Amino acid sequence: MRVHKKIRQELLKEKLHDSPFYTDEELAVCLGVSIQTIRLDRLELGIPEVRERTKQMAEEARDKLKTIASADVVGDIIDLELGKSGISLMVVTSDMVFEKTKIARGHYIFAQANSLALAIIDASLAVTGIANIKYKVPVREGEKLVAKAEIVKKRGNKSFIWVKTRNEVQEVFRAKFIMVSQDC
Amino acid sequence: MRVHKKIRQELLKEKLHDSPFYTDEELAVCLGVSIQTIRLDRLELGIPEVRERTKQMAEEARDKLKTIASADVVGDIIDLELGKSGISLMVVTSDMVFEKTKIARGHYIFAQANSLALAIIDASLAVTGIANIKYKVPVREGEKLVAKAEIVKKRGNKSFIWVKTRNEVQEVFRAKFIMVSQDC
Repeated sequence: MRVHKKIRQELLKEKLHDSPFYTDEELAVCLGVSIQTIRLDRLELGIPEVRERTKQMAEEARDKLKTIASADVVGDIIDLELGKSGISLMVVTSDMVFEKTKIARGHYIFAQANSLALAIIDASLAVTGIANIKYKVPVREGEKLVAKAEIVKKRGNKSFIWVKTRNEVQEVFRAKFIMVSQDC
Repeated sequence: MRVHKKIRQELLKEKLHDSPFYTDEELAVCLGVSIQTIRLDRLELGIPEVRERTKQMAEEARDKLKTIASADVVGDIIDLELGKSGISLMVVTSDMVFEKTKIARGHYIFAQANSLALAIIDASLAVTGIANIKYKVPVREGEKLVAKAEIVKKRGNKSFIWVKTRNEVQEVFRAKFIMVSQDC
């Protein structure tokens, strides 16, 4: 059964709101239509294709960075609400995996989360105090990791931040950070 | 007051047992003698100079690695007792510090600890499950970080590992890891 076009386009917008990194191929599978249909829908809705979408978002987010220089960010921050939340995207490349097991080296996944946690703090200087982290599933080369960070509490100069990282299928990593900032 | 040579040489051996990374200059300051005296003492005791000492230890440790390929290790592992403990050395270089603050990026310090924790496990495959970490003092370029790891408990395929990292002056970082291995 084909879904009505209006409803499909709403679903499409909703999916891209949840995760802006779906490719046309993935959206086509999700919504049970052809890739061509997805392309036409995007055209009508004025939504650029995934690469352009990510690039635009990354540029907008970059301008907001305060605690961290953009060169120091691991992964691409594509959404940033200072003092509140952020989203980062990282594709696991061959240099990030262990030679023996081809599993992603934990510190890359940590680095993505840690630099995102730092980036969302609305201060000119912040450092990591404490991190409690959990690796839930091994991650492999080629996987697209989306990390979402949120400041859940603030107490004095301490920010309590949750970061959850998913691949296309499931949550693979989560971390609680306590970041210490200097001027907020 | 000059310490008797025998006692001084015992102190020297003891200091190098605690941390094999002292340079002759540092040892001279510590023991209140000239650098020449330290060199002569080392010669008599058959202890190579720091660079050679570290290299030898790193080579010996490298041969023991099981869970991790040596290319994947962050820092130089210079002591390794599989299933028990290990020591790693890392000098903080300019590419490891934040552009803005010149403070070492947390994930490098984490990576040194994490790869050491992985290396000391006596199994062919292991992954990081949980890590609880604490950054105690900001670390800067040029600092020499010595991480010591110890397996404090084993339960089934889980190893509970403590890693403590010091610079020349104090403890800068500590981490508790739960690593999950496959064949032990």
